[in-house]
Amino acid sequence: MKRIQHYIDGRMTGLDSTRTAAVFNPSTGTQSAEVSLASKADTESAIQAAAKAFPGWAATSPLKRSRVLFKYKALLEEHTDEIARLIASEHGKVLSDARGELTRGIEVVEFACGMPHLQKGEHSLNVGTGVDSFSMMQPLGVCAGITPFNFPAMVPLWMFPIAIAAGNTFVLKPSEKDPSATLRIVELFTEAGLPDGVLNLINGDKEAVDTLLTDPRVQAVSFVGSTPIAEYVYATGSQHGKRVQALGGAKNHMVIMPDADLDQAADALMGAAYGSAGERCMAISVAVPVGDETASLLREKLLSRLDGLRVGQSIVEGPDHDMGPLVTGQHLDKVRAYIAAGVEEGAELVRDGRELDDQSGGYFIGGTLFDQVKPGMRIYDEEIFGPVLAIARAASFDEAVAMVNAHEFGNGTAIFTRDGDSARQYCEQIQVGMVGVNVPIPVPMAFHSFGGWKRSIFGALHVHGPDGVRFYTRMKTVTARWPSGLRERTNHYSMPTL
Amino acid sequence: MKRIQHYIDGRMTGLDSTRTAAVFNPSTGTQSAEVSLASKADTESAIQAAAKAFPGWAATSPLKRSRVLFKYKALLEEHTDEIARLIASEHGKVLSDARGELTRGIEVVEFACGMPHLQKGEHSLNVGTGVDSFSMMQPLGVCAGITPFNFPAMVPLWMFPIAIAAGNTFVLKPSEKDPSATLRIVELFTEAGLPDGVLNLINGDKEAVDTLLTDPRVQAVSFVGSTPIAEYVYATGSQHGKRVQALGGAKNHMVIMPDADLDQAADALMGAAYGSAGERCMAISVAVPVGDETASLLREKLLSRLDGLRVGQSIVEGPDHDMGPLVTGQHLDKVRAYIAAGVEEGAELVRDGRELDDQSGGYFIGGTLFDQVKPGMRIYDEEIFGPVLAIARAASFDEAVAMVNAHEFGNGTAIFTRDGDSARQYCEQIQVGMVGVNVPIPVPMAFHSFGGWKRSIFGALHVHGPDGVRFYTRMKTVTARWPSGLRERTNHYSMPTL
Amino acid sequence: MKRIQHYIDGRMTGLDSTRTAAVFNPSTGTQSAEVSLASKADTESAIQAAAKAFPGWAATSPLKRSRVLFKYKALLEEHTDEIARLIASEHGKVLSDARGELTRGIEVVEFACGMPHLQKGEHSLNVGTGVDSFSMMQPLGVCAGITPFNFPAMVPLWMFPIAIAAGNTFVLKPSEKDPSATLRIVELFTEAGLPDGVLNLINGDKEAVDTLLTDPRVQAVSFVGSTPIAEYVYATGSQHGKRVQALGGAKNHMVIMPDADLDQAADALMGAAYGSAGERCMAISVAVPVGDETASLLREKLLSRLDGLRVGQSIVEGPDHDMGPLVTGQHLDKVRAYIAAGVEEGAELVRDGRELDDQSGGYFIGGTLFDQVKPGMRIYDEEIFGPVLAIARAASFDEAVAMVNAHEFGNGTAIFTRDGDSARQYCEQIQVGMVGVNVPIPVPMAFHSFGGWKRSIFGALHVHGPDGVRFYTRMKTVTARWPSGLRERTNHYSMPTL
Amino acid sequence: MKRIQHYIDGRMTGLDSTRTAAVFNPSTGTQSAEVSLASKADTESAIQAAAKAFPGWAATSPLKRSRVLFKYKALLEEHTDEIARLIASEHGKVLSDARGELTRGIEVVEFACGMPHLQKGEHSLNVGTGVDSFSMMQPLGVCAGITPFNFPAMVPLWMFPIAIAAGNTFVLKPSEKDPSATLRIVELFTEAGLPDGVLNLINGDKEAVDTLLTDPRVQAVSFVGSTPIAEYVYATGSQHGKRVQALGGAKNHMVIMPDADLDQAADALMGAAYGSAGERCMAISVAVPVGDETASLLREKLLSRLDGLRVGQSIVEGPDHDMGPLVTGQHLDKVRAYIAAGVEEGAELVRDGRELDDQSGGYFIGGTLFDQVKPGMRIYDEEIFGPVLAIARAASFDEAVAMVNAHEFGNGTAIFTRDGDSARQYCEQIQVGMVGVNVPIPVPMAFHSFGGWKRSIFGALHVHGPDGVRFYTRMKTVTARWPSGLRERTNHYSMPTL
Repeated sequence: MKRIQHYIDGRMTGLDSTRTAAVFNPSTGTQSAEVSLASKADTESAIQAAAKAFPGWAATSPLKRSRVLFKYKALLEEHTDEIARLIASEHGKVLSDARGELTRGIEVVEFACGMPHLQKGEHSLNVGTGVDSFSMMQPLGVCAGITPFNFPAMVPLWMFPIAIAAGNTFVLKPSEKDPSATLRIVELFTEAGLPDGVLNLINGDKEAVDTLLTDPRVQAVSFVGSTPIAEYVYATGSQHGKRVQALGGAKNHMVIMPDADLDQAADALMGAAYGSAGERCMAISVAVPVGDETASLLREKLLSRLDGLRVGQSIVEGPDHDMGPLVTGQHLDKVRAYIAAGVEEGAELVRDGRELDDQSGGYFIGGTLFDQVKPGMRIYDEEIFGPVLAIARAASFDEAVAMVNAHEFGNGTAIFTRDGDSARQYCEQIQVGMVGVNVPIPVPMAFHSFGGWKRSIFGALHVHGPDGVRFYTRMKTVTARWPSGLRERTNHYSMPTL
Repeated sequence: MKRIQHYIDGRMTGLDSTRTAAVFNPSTGTQSAEVSLASKADTESAIQAAAKAFPGWAATSPLKRSRVLFKYKALLEEHTDEIARLIASEHGKVLSDARGELTRGIEVVEFACGMPHLQKGEHSLNVGTGVDSFSMMQPLGVCAGITPFNFPAMVPLWMFPIAIAAGNTFVLKPSEKDPSATLRIVELFTEAGLPDGVLNLINGDKEAVDTLLTDPRVQAVSFVGSTPIAEYVYATGSQHGKRVQALGGAKNHMVIMPDADLDQAADALMGAAYGSAGERCMAISVAVPVGDETASLLREKLLSRLDGLRVGQSIVEGPDHDMGPLVTGQHLDKVRAYIAAGVEEGAELVRDGRELDDQSGGYFIGGTLFDQVKPGMRIYDEEIFGPVLAIARAASFDEAVAMVNAHEFGNGTAIFTRDGDSARQYCEQIQVGMVGVNVPIPVPMAFHSFGGWKRSIFGALHVHGPDGVRFYTRMKTVTARWPSGLRERTNHYSMPTL
Repeated sequence: MKRIQHYIDGRMTGLDSTRTAAVFNPSTGTQSAEVSLASKADTESAIQAAAKAFPGWAATSPLKRSRVLFKYKALLEEHTDEIARLIASEHGKVLSDARGELTRGIEVVEFACGMPHLQKGEHSLNVGTGVDSFSMMQPLGVCAGITPFNFPAMVPLWMFPIAIAAGNTFVLKPSEKDPSATLRIVELFTEAGLPDGVLNLINGDKEAVDTLLTDPRVQAVSFVGSTPIAEYVYATGSQHGKRVQALGGAKNHMVIMPDADLDQAADALMGAAYGSAGERCMAISVAVPVGDETASLLREKLLSRLDGLRVGQSIVEGPDHDMGPLVTGQHLDKVRAYIAAGVEEGAELVRDGRELDDQSGGYFIGGTLFDQVKPGMRIYDEEIFGPVLAIARAASFDEAVAMVNAHEFGNGTAIFTRDGDSARQYCEQIQVGMVGVNVPIPVPMAFHSFGGWKRSIFGALHVHGPDGVRFYTRMKTVTARWPSGLRERTNHYSMPTL
Repeated sequence: MKRIQHYIDGRMTGLDSTRTAAVFNPSTGTQSAEVSLASKADTESAIQAAAKAFPGWAATSPLKRSRVLFKYKALLEEHTDEIARLIASEHGKVLSDARGELTRGIEVVEFACGMPHLQKGEHSLNVGTGVDSFSMMQPLGVCAGITPFNFPAMVPLWMFPIAIAAGNTFVLKPSEKDPSATLRIVELFTEAGLPDGVLNLINGDKEAVDTLLTDPRVQAVSFVGSTPIAEYVYATGSQHGKRVQALGGAKNHMVIMPDADLDQAADALMGAAYGSAGERCMAISVAVPVGDETASLLREKLLSRLDGLRVGQSIVEGPDHDMGPLVTGQHLDKVRAYIAAGVEEGAELVRDGRELDDQSGGYFIGGTLFDQVKPGMRIYDEEIFGPVLAIARAASFDEAVAMVNAHEFGNGTAIFTRDGDSARQYCEQIQVGMVGVNVPIPVPMAFHSFGGWKRSIFGALHVHGPDGVRFYTRMKTVTARWPSGLRERTNHYSMPTL
C-alpha cells in the first residue's frame, strides 16, 4: 500500500507514524493509499524547520525570492497533467475541472511574483520639519495553512505562495482525504529553488491542527473549511495571539430576474450547482427565480439539461464527464440523508439523484433538484456540499434580497439580469462578500481578494490579492530625525579656506 | 455632586444608573464628580441606537459624511481650551500636554476627511474577455471602541472618526476615571451635524465591556489598554465572530549609541520618560546606553536635568509644570510599590521620586531613576506606567538589540545615533512596531498607522491611517459580465433602414 | 469705472497698467468694469513673487500646508453667495448654477486637504541586501494656470489648491472676460493664512500667456480652453521644457438607446445642452438616438420641454431662470452664425433660438434644436459653445459608437440605456475620456481625475484627483546603503567588558 | 558582409534598403556588419503593422498578455549569453557588464508580469446616492521607443515590456551603432508567443525618428539619449499631440564627506566612472570631495587604483577586463578632444588615459583623472561620455550642494558619508532625480521609476515602475447611474401574489 508522508525541511518523512488514515479513489471506492497522520511532535518538527529557515529567507531580498516563484510557476505548468491526475484520482473531480483548479492556483503564484512591488511601504518626507516617516512591511515568521479536501491544489496555492514571497516560512496541513496533489505541489517548490524548511507539509488531523493553533512559534494561520471548524480555528488561534483568517461554509444563492437570459442562466446553474459534484464553497446551491413565471421556465430548462448530465469516472479516455463522484462514502451518505430530509420537510423533489444507476462501487449520486424550498428547511439552511440544487422562489426583487441577506452565510452570490439597475442595487445591498453579475461562480481573480461576509469568514482580511499581502506582513513604522553637527562642522571649518 | 452621564442617540442619559464610580481631581485628591456605570441594558440601548442609525448613515455618500467631519474638526479646534482643561483636571497631565494630545487626535479627523478617496476600491477591466471585476469597501455596521484613561481625547479620536467617516456607527466606552473630555468630544460631533445614534458613548466597567464583546450586533471592536485586558478583549470578541484590534502594554527602550548627541538624548529621555508622569504607552521606560562610558555620561546628564524637573498641579497660572500627578491614589500606591521592588531586586536607585515633598493631597511622585536594571527584575519586565526610568546597560549594539527583542512587548522603541548604519540596522532588526531614529516617542502621524508587535497588539491591522480604513470596511468583490442581445438587436433591426 | 487689478505677493496691484479690457454684465450688455492687462513685466513680477515664496512654502510640512487648505474651504463656503453673484454678473450663468460651480471647486479643496496622505512616496526595504530604496514626491516650484471664462471659479480651483497643497507656488491667469470671482477666490486664500507670494493672479491676454509659457522659472502649466490654444500652449510650454497639461475643446455626444427611459433622457438633455447656455466643455451638443423611432420620440419630448425653457437675467428675485445670456456680444454673433451655417448646410432647424424676443440689451439667445445633423457639417464638427443641440441619428449601436469615435474630440460622452451590456460595451469601446451611463455630464468627482482623450487633451496626466497630485510633484528616488563600521566597533570594543 | 535588418509584423525585412550604415567591433576597429536604415515608408510600414495589431492585442485580457511576458522572461534568461556577446561585440562593454545590463532589463519584464494588478483603476461606490464612478486604464495604441547605443538591451527593455503588457503595440528604433542585441531581444518576444505586429523594430536615423514623431498613428514616444535630441524629440512629438517622455544627458556628481569610508568611496568611483568606459547616463563623472584633506586622500586612493585598471577587449578568455573600448572611432576622437580642452582650460590632468599603449586598432583610451576642475570648464559643464573623472573640490557640504544644484543636468548623484544627517539633507535638497547614499550608481529598481530632473528629462512621468504604467495607459473615468423601473416593477407586479 502506497504510504503518503510529510514533507519537512526538504525531505519526505513520516514513515514511522503510528497513526494513519486511508485514502480512497472515489470513482471506484477502493483504497489507493494510506497517509501518515502527524503527531504533536511531527508537527512541532515541521514548525521547527520553518522557524529555523525563517531568518535566512526573510533576509533574502524580495526580488530574489520572487525569482524562485517565477521558476515555480513554470514547474507547475510543466506538471499540470500529473497534478490534475492526482487531484482527479483522490478527490474525484473530472480532469478538466482539476486542471482548471490548478490554473487558478498558478494565477496566485503569478500574482506573488510581483512581491517586490506589492511589499512596498509608504514614505513621507517631512511629517514635521526635518522629520521623515516610512513603513516597512516585514514578514511575520512561521505561518500555517489548513486546507480542505475540495481544492487540494488551489486553496493551498491561495496561501503559501504569497506568504513565502513575502519572506515567511510555512507549514501546510492539507486535507488527509486527498493529500497527494498537495504534496506534489509542495515538493515542486523545492525543485524550483526554495531553500529547505521554507515550505513544509504535514498530513494530519485534529492533533496537528491543535498544535499549529497553539504553538507560540506560529504567527499566523489561514484556514478554509466548514464554519464550525473555522470558528474554532479563529477563536483558538486568536486566543493564542495569532493572526487568523478562517473561511467557513456557504449557501450561495443565484437570483434570476424575469428579464434575464434564461438559457444562459440555466446553463450557468448547471455548472455552478453540479460541477465538481457541488463540492465547492462557491457552488450555487439555491436558485432564486423572481416571479412564478420565471420559476416555471427556469425549472423546465433545468430539467431538460439534467437529462443530459453525464456522471461518471473522473478520469476517462475521451471527453470528460460533467461530474464525478463525491469524495467519500461517508459524505455520500450525508448527501443522501439531506435529500431525504428535504422530502420530509415538504420540499418538492423534482429530480432525485439517488436514482442514479451505478455499479462501479464509486461514491456517485446524480444531479438533484428541489423546488418550493423555503428558509427553515435544513436543505435551505445548511451547506450540503453535494449536487443538490434548491429552487427557492421569490415574489419580487426585494424579497429575493431579503432572503439572501437573512441567511447566516455570506460567501458568494449571483444575479442574472440584463438590467443595470437590478444588478447595481443587488451589488450594493447584498450582504455577501463575492457577487456575480451574470457570473455564476464569482471567484475573484488572484490579483483581487477572496472572502465572504457574515459566518462565511472570521477575520478582517480576505485571502490572496492585496489583502493576502497585508495578512502575511507586519507593519513597522519608522519616524526619523537626524542631529545636525557633522554637516555644519564641515561648513564651518571650511570657512577660512574661502 | 456633578453626575457624568452616557450619550445615546443624541441625548444625555443615565441619571438613573444604580451603579456609579467616583471621579477625582488628581492634583488635589478630591472627588470632582460621579460617573454612571452602564448596565447591560444601558449598553444594549446604545448598541440599539447605533444599529438603528446604521442604514441611513451607510447610505449617505462618503462625500457628505466627510463634510460633517470637516465641521467637526473646526469645532474641536474652537473648543481646544475647554477640552484640554477637562483632560488636565481629571487625568492630571499638564495643560500644554493635554492640548498636544487633542491636536494629535484632531489630525485623525483631518485624515478621515479624505474618506471619499480613502474608501475607493479597485477596478479591473477585462479580467477575462468581457468580464470586469471591482471591489467595494463598505462599512461594517456597529463598531465599538474601548479606550484607556491616559489619552481620554486622542485614543477615542484614533477610532471613531475613521469608523464613522467610512459609514459605520459607533459605541464608545471610555475610561471611567476621566470621562468628561471624552464626553465633550462626542457631544461636539452631534453639533457638527452628525445624525443622532451614529456616535454613542457609555461610561462603564466590565459589564459594559462584556456586553460590547458579545452582542451580535457589534461587528468590530477597537481596544487600547493593558495587555491582559487586550488579550481578553481579543479572544472574547474573536470568539463572538467580531473583527478585533486590541492594543496592549509596552516597555519601550531607547538605545543610545556612543556616537549619539548625548545632550539631545538626555533631553529627549526627560520628556519621553517623565512627560505625562510616564502614563503613556509610548513612554520610554528603559534607557539602553551602549558601553559604560556612554552610560556614565548619560546618567550624569539625566541627574542634572532631574534636579530641574518641575512637578505640580496640572492647571496653573503661568508656565506649565513639566509633570503633573498620577491619575489615582491607587495607581500612586502601585508605582511606589514598583520602586520598592526595584530596590529589593538589586537595582541602583539613583533618584527616588518618593521623596518628593508635596502637601497638596494630590497623587504626586517625583521623577525616579534606576541604574543597573536587568531583565528578570519586575521593574524591567513589567509596565509601571509611572515616572520611573530604568537604565539597562548594554555592552554592544548587538547586545542592545538582543535585549529589546527578548522583551515580551514590542510597542515602541528609539535609537539615538548619528550613524546611518546603526539606525538602519536597528530599524530592520528590531521586533518592535514603531521605531524612532533620534525621535524618542515615534507615534506615527494620523496618515500612517499606529501599532506595536508581539504582545503589544492582538490583530493584524494597526490603528488609524490606511490600516484603520481597512479595519472599518468590509471588502465586497463583484465580477460582472453582461448577456449580449439588446445591443445586437439594435444593430440588426436597424439594418433595413440603411 | 471699477478697475479690476492683479494680485501679486499678497497685494492688489496693476492700477498703472496701460492696457485694459472692458468687462460686461452679459444680462444687460453694459460695461461693469475694466480690467488691467498684465505686461510681460507685470507677469514676471508675479512669477518672481512666486519664485521667492517657493523655498519657504516647500519647506513647510504637508500637514501644516493642509491646515491652510482646511481654513480656505471654510472661507469659501462662507463667501459662497458673494462669489456666486460675481460669477453670475460677469459670466451670465444663473445663480444656482454659479453656486453649483463653486461647490464642485470646493470639493477639490477638500481633496487637497488630504495631501499628507496623497503626497506619500513608496519605500522598499532590501531592494538588495542592506540596500533600501524610496521615493519622495517633491513640489516642482512655480506653477501656472491659464483658465477659461466659462468656469471662473471651478477651473482655477481644479488647479491651484492641489499645486499649493503639494508645496508649489502659483501664478494664475484667469479669463479677462469675467475675472472678479477668480480674484475674490484668490484673495480669500491669503485670508486663510497662505503666505504672500504663494498664490498670485494676473489678468491679461497673449502677452501674459506667452510670458508664462517661456519664463524658465515656471515649471509647469495647466491650461483649459479651446483646442487650438491648448495645442499652442502645450507645444510652446513643452518646447520650453515645462510640464504641461492642456485641455481643449469638446463635442460631447449622448447616445440614447431604444430601451432608455426617454423622459429621463430628455430631461437630462435639456440640462446638459442648454444649462449655462451651453458654455460648458462637458455640455452635450449632439444627441444620438439609435433608431428612427427613438429619434422621433425624443425629438417630440425635447420640443415640448423647449416650450418651457425659461431664458433671462442671471440674477433675479425668486426662482432662477433655466438659462442666462451668452458671455459677450461677440460670442452671441458667433453662435448665431453657426445656426445660420447649419441651415445652409442642410440640417433641419427644429427650434430657432434666434427668434427669442428680448429687449434687455443682454446677450440672449433661445434654446436651439437641429435634427438630421451629420458629420461634415460645421455644426457637427465644431464646438459651438452655445445653447444649440444637434440630433444626429444612428441606425444602430455600432453606428453610434463609430460616429462618436470618428470625431476629433473625445472629452465627454454619455449613453442612456437600461441594458448593462450596452452600457458596458459603450464604456469599453468609446474613445472618450469621461463617460456617463445615464449621467449626462459625467464630470469626475474631485477625488477622481478630469480629462478627455484625443484632441480634447494634450499631456499624459489628467486634472485633479490622483493624477493632479502626480502632475504637481516631481519624483526623486533614493537608493541607500550604509557602510558598516561604527556599529561593529561598538560590538568589538565592548568585548573585553563582558 | 552581414546585413542587419528590420523586424516588422513578425518578419525580418529591409534587405532592399538603399541606405545603410556600418557596424563595427570597437575592440578591433573592424566593420562587422552593415545595417539597413529605414526610410519613411519602411517606418510607416512598421507603424502600420503595429496599428493593425493593436485592436486584437488590446482586447486580450491583461492576464493573458502577462503570460506571454512570463515566457519572454524565461527565454531572455536562456539566451543571456548569446545576447551579452552581441552587446559586447558591437558596443564594446565587457561581457560581465553586458550580462548585468541584460539582468536589469529582465527585471522590467518581471515587473511587467504584474500587469493584471498594476493596470487596475479605482472604484468609488456612491459618489452621490446611487451614482458610482470608476476609472479604467486603457492602452494608448501604437507607442514608439527611440533608444541609445549605450544600453542596447536594458533601455529598450525599460519601455516595450510595460507598454506591451498594458495592451499597446510598439515600434522600436534602437541605435544604429549596435543594433544586433536589440534585434535579438525583439525576435525572442515573438518566440514567446507575442502576436505578429505587436512589437516591431526598425533600424534607422533621423528619417525614421521624424516619421515616428509626426505620424498621427503614434500615440506616445519614449526616448533616451542626449539632451539636445531629447529636447527636439519632446518638442516635436508634443507639437504632434503625442505623449512624450524624453530622457537626456547627465553630469553626475558624487559628494564625498570627510567622514565617509574613503576606500569604499574610491572603489565605488572606479566602477562608476570607468565602468563601461564611462558611457553610461548614470556614470559618475565628477567627484566632489568636501575639504582639501578629503580631496587629497581620495585622489591618492584613485591614483593607486588607476594603476591597476585593466583595459582591453570586451570578450576574452578568462576574467573580464575592467573596461573595454569606446563605441566608435569618432567618439574616441571626441573624448580625446575633451581631455585636451581640460588641460587648456587649466584643470590639472592627474592621469592621462590617452597614454594608453594599445596596438589593437580598437577604440581604446585609458582611465583619465583631472583635479581642480571647476564650473565653467567644458569638462565640467558638458557630458563627455568617456572614462574621464573630474575632481571638483568643495570647501563645505553647502558648497557641494550648491555646485550640484547649479548644474544644468539633474540625472543622478551620490553622497558618501556615515552621517545620517548629511545623507538626509542631501537627499532633500539636491535637485537631482536619482540619489545614492553610499551607492554610486543609484539606478532605481524596475519596480520603482527611472528619471532625472532639470534638463535630464522632458515630460512628467519617469520610465518603468508605476510611472511607466501610467505613461502607457490612458485614463477613462465612468460615472454611472441606473434608471429604476424594471426592478420596482418586479416588486410591484408581485404584490398581489403575496
